[in-house]
Amino acid sequence: MKNLEEKILMARGLRKSDLVFKNAKVVDVFSNKIINGDIAVSGGIILGVGDYSGADEIDLEGKFVSPCLIDGHVHIESSMVTPTELAKVLIPNGVATIIADPHEIANVLGIDGINYLLEASENLPLDVRIMLPSCVPATDFEHSGANLVFKDLEKLKDRDRVLGLGEMMNYPGVINCDKVVMDKIEGFSDRVIDGHAPGLLGKALNAYALSGIKTDHECSTVEEMNERISNGMYVQIRQGTSAKNAEILTKGITKDNLSRILFCTDDKHPKDLLEKGSVNENIKIAIKNGIDPIDAIKIATINAAKCYDLKGKGAIAPGYEANFIVLDDIVKFVIDSVYIDGKKISEGKKLLREIKSKTDIKSIGEVKVHDRRLEDFEIKLNSNRANVIGINPNELLTEKLVEEVPVHDGVFKADDVYQKLIVIERHNGLDSFGKGIIKGFGIKNGSIASTIAHDSHNIIIIGDNDKDIYRAMEEIKNINGGITVVSNGEVLASLPLEIAGLMSSGTVEETSLKLEKVLDAIKNNLGVNCKSLDPILTLGFMSLPVIPNLKLTDEGLFDVSEFKFIDINA
Amino acid sequence: MKNLEEKILMARGLRKSDLVFKNAKVVDVFSNKIINGDIAVSGGIILGVGDYSGADEIDLEGKFVSPCLIDGHVHIESSMVTPTELAKVLIPNGVATIIADPHEIANVLGIDGINYLLEASENLPLDVRIMLPSCVPATDFEHSGANLVFKDLEKLKDRDRVLGLGEMMNYPGVINCDKVVMDKIEGFSDRVIDGHAPGLLGKALNAYALSGIKTDHECSTVEEMNERISNGMYVQIRQGTSAKNAEILTKGITKDNLSRILFCTDDKHPKDLLEKGSVNENIKIAIKNGIDPIDAIKIATINAAKCYDLKGKGAIAPGYEANFIVLDDIVKFVIDSVYIDGKKISEGKKLLREIKSKTDIKSIGEVKVHDRRLEDFEIKLNSNRANVIGINPNELLTEKLVEEVPVHDGVFKADDVYQKLIVIERHNGLDSFGKGIIKGFGIKNGSIASTIAHDSHNIIIIGDNDKDIYRAMEEIKNINGGITVVSNGEVLASLPLEIAGLMSSGTVEETSLKLEKVLDAIKNNLGVNCKSLDPILTLGFMSLPVIPNLKLTDEGLFDVSEFKFIDINA
Repeated sequence: MKNLEEKILMARGLRKSDLVFKNAKVVDVFSNKIINGDIAVSGGIILGVGDYSGADEIDLEGKFVSPCLIDGHVHIESSMVTPTELAKVLIPNGVATIIADPHEIANVLGIDGINYLLEASENLPLDVRIMLPSCVPATDFEHSGANLVFKDLEKLKDRDRVLGLGEMMNYPGVINCDKVVMDKIEGFSDRVIDGHAPGLLGKALNAYALSGIKTDHECSTVEEMNERISNGMYVQIRQGTSAKNAEILTKGITKDNLSRILFCTDDKHPKDLLEKGSVNENIKIAIKNGIDPIDAIKIATINAAKCYDLKGKGAIAPGYEANFIVLDDIVKFVIDSVYIDGKKISEGKKLLREIKSKTDIKSIGEVKVHDRRLEDFEIKLNSNRANVIGINPNELLTEKLVEEVPVHDGVFKADDVYQKLIVIERHNGLDSFGKGIIKGFGIKNGSIASTIAHDSHNIIIIGDNDKDIYRAMEEIKNINGGITVVSNGEVLASLPLEIAGLMSSGTVEETSLKLEKVLDAIKNNLGVNCKSLDPILTLGFMSLPVIPNLKLTDEGLFDVSEFKFIDINA
Repeated sequence: MKNLEEKILMARGLRKSDLVFKNAKVVDVFSNKIINGDIAVSGGIILGVGDYSGADEIDLEGKFVSPCLIDGHVHIESSMVTPTELAKVLIPNGVATIIADPHEIANVLGIDGINYLLEASENLPLDVRIMLPSCVPATDFEHSGANLVFKDLEKLKDRDRVLGLGEMMNYPGVINCDKVVMDKIEGFSDRVIDGHAPGLLGKALNAYALSGIKTDHECSTVEEMNERISNGMYVQIRQGTSAKNAEILTKGITKDNLSRILFCTDDKHPKDLLEKGSVNENIKIAIKNGIDPIDAIKIATINAAKCYDLKGKGAIAPGYEANFIVLDDIVKFVIDSVYIDGKKISEGKKLLREIKSKTDIKSIGEVKVHDRRLEDFEIKLNSNRANVIGINPNELLTEKLVEEVPVHDGVFKADDVYQKLIVIERHNGLDSFGKGIIKGFGIKNGSIASTIAHDSHNIIIIGDNDKDIYRAMEEIKNINGGITVVSNGEVLASLPLEIAGLMSSGTVEETSLKLEKVLDAIKNNLGVNCKSLDPILTLGFMSLPVIPNLKLTDEGLFDVSEFKFIDINA
């Protein structure tokens, strides 16, 4: 690493630069210009753009050069892979920095989970910055693996790469001045606090912004987006696997509001990452919707750097990191190659060097389940009238139904319409066990179990017979967390997620393939209509007691509208 | 001061706000909109804009409301008054925050001078933020009152209201990696460092930006401005008393580059402050040149807040300071009234309450002059060929002339064309004394002396006879610094600047009036053509050895192009 004095002499051209990229069309995110010139680099830092010669020279042949992209808000856990494996797929997509909220793993493992992600993302070419999860557990109506109050988070506040407080989903807690929430907000008042407030408008939004919350990635309308921007917040336009807001929101970008807009993925599954990329997809959608390509790049680079005060990121200018994307086509945002620290790291979709993290941990955490017998899965009913969770196609909102369900000898009997939903505490082996009846999933002759069950990530199981449900639970224990599909007592497919029951230690490709096999089995063997719902995603949200209307946690059936547990007997 | 919980309830409208400004047209600097609504306020903080009712209500009658303005770079000393008196003139002009570089007073008094300004600006309604002077002394070719290296500045780095390192005028020192300069730059690499690099372009500018310097207020062309912006720097468009760049530079503002532009005054004299205001003048010029009024306001508010990371400043939004301007006319930027902390502080140009600083100091520093006799002012010459400082009308650049000057008995004799210029060390009473011959000033039958003599602020005296020169020096000692005009042995007018010989303890009006009398005497009694030069400004720059070509310091005649002292004998 050269010192500043040597770099200054190289920048002036009095000494040959260590490395020069000749013939670049540099995207200037500060004033929307394209600058034709050479990029001089030393020690991983850009010295300047101009007419330079270098000890080492690389001809960029007049191609456009964009700064590397920043994903403004992402849960690494949704990629189902380790930071190292995620880096392998993000880097060729031009993403060199992510603002990650380890909310899921913290719900399973608490501070240990955050520490694991910090360690597992050290020394990667992908710069992983951490927002400390603000809502662990998400609610008081379920058993999670941890409970993090401000005192816990405070210990990590000054850790390297920790930027601030993660998405404050408990917006009712904020605007109702919940003590535990206010402690966190006031404790992080000197840092960035991310928001999460779908649909909040008017005075409630004023109160939310007043509290010091600076961003929101939950906008689904231009009105929501603009109101947040007027309130001084930054808006992260999201394009993930299930929540896709870019198509609508990018139409609301103007020259006047764009300095307050970022791009993010939030939750993106391995298959989508492989097929559509990361926030480069958001850029493409924006450009397709008429946004100036340089503005789209600005949003994905310098804006995020400004929002999170990331020095040296987001531009091609003196003193900035030599992390950039060479583009084959700027309008279609086709990536030729990616450079990190001035070194080519990928070409096309192919990585050119090995990426390794500091840690080799292949498994973390243990699925602990209280001893169960087959009979535990029986649902006893007083009559055939029961409270039933009704699934709507392609929606996370459920209906609270009261239906006549099939009952034999006082015991619920699943059929083509009604099946069983089970949630089993898995963090401390507690005797906590929720049972419910679900309609609209359509599972036949089998069972699906998963340890991805938002936000506490207990074991969630759906099935039409107790033997397969039991077998699925056993398999989850065997693989120490993950997703499994069982039919006729036989495991058809599994995706082991040995890291906290959330992430695989395999590659993105392997993980995506295993997930495909799981989905195939669900579709082909269990007869689930995967067009009307994503079975794993849908199952994973049946336990989240903050999305209306009827949900199931390990503590029982939860009526979200009434905010209380209810009996299965209607 | 209400706590956050109470404010949140008021923002939600669940509780009456303490104070509501009804019927406002709020300038939204985040997305260039005008929002019709009420502004709710509590404890000096904006709670939100919407439909609010308050315990106290003020009807703004549909007038436009802009955030208070920020002067991005100013030397308080150029106003010739104390921070308190400056506040009295800035506040009615809508300026509530200034980024001040106490470079002048630091050259006279060192750290004590900076401490004085910090103390004298405490508890004012004007928020004075300090950039620590980077270039004290400005050069090694003169005696200043102090020499500040990084170790000295470091002690003040973490003081409240200290933001970073002031304008790095020694740009040759930066790009040539001068050790003392690099120490400062590296020592402030975690803070904002202001720049000052007139005319620097291309690779030299790359090197300057690479060093970490973030701003520049010395641009005089759009080309210079745009190149700085492309290099990631912020540009402060300046409109001061002598340097006026707004007319040209505001024509270069576009929707694409404006997020990197600020407004500043740099150096503005009391008369101009009274007649033209502060950066509100820059706004008017920008609007006149076709810039959207909201963009012009954006530049003078949120942009400066972002550049200097000033939390809670520069916008009307939840959590921001309730400092705003009510406008009679947004296009002409006519100010109706100004509110600080939600309280009306001025109406029209009239202040509504007393402004007092924490300190009552009326005088600081002592003019110390080595004992002089009248004969000391004689200039002995070997022949009548001498090196002469040639003044150009309305320019700070001087000519290095070799002329035949009037000589009697080997002694220079001033006439209508050639007069005497004297610089006397005044900080430590040293026997350091520069003498020169000057052409183009045109002073007759008298003398002018001043302790404003950039950048070391020794005593500079011009005159056509030694008696008046001596008398002017004596008067400067009597008034302990300031400006004086003498003719026929009689003091015609004086402006005492008892604070470091730079600032008056009087009001802006008094100071402006006294300065007017000084100028009148110069024009009427000494016959100086004040249309072709501002005599005080011109005189004050004759000692600055960084502006070409020939200058005089207390150490002698200095050839700036050759960067060395020369003899007066040619």
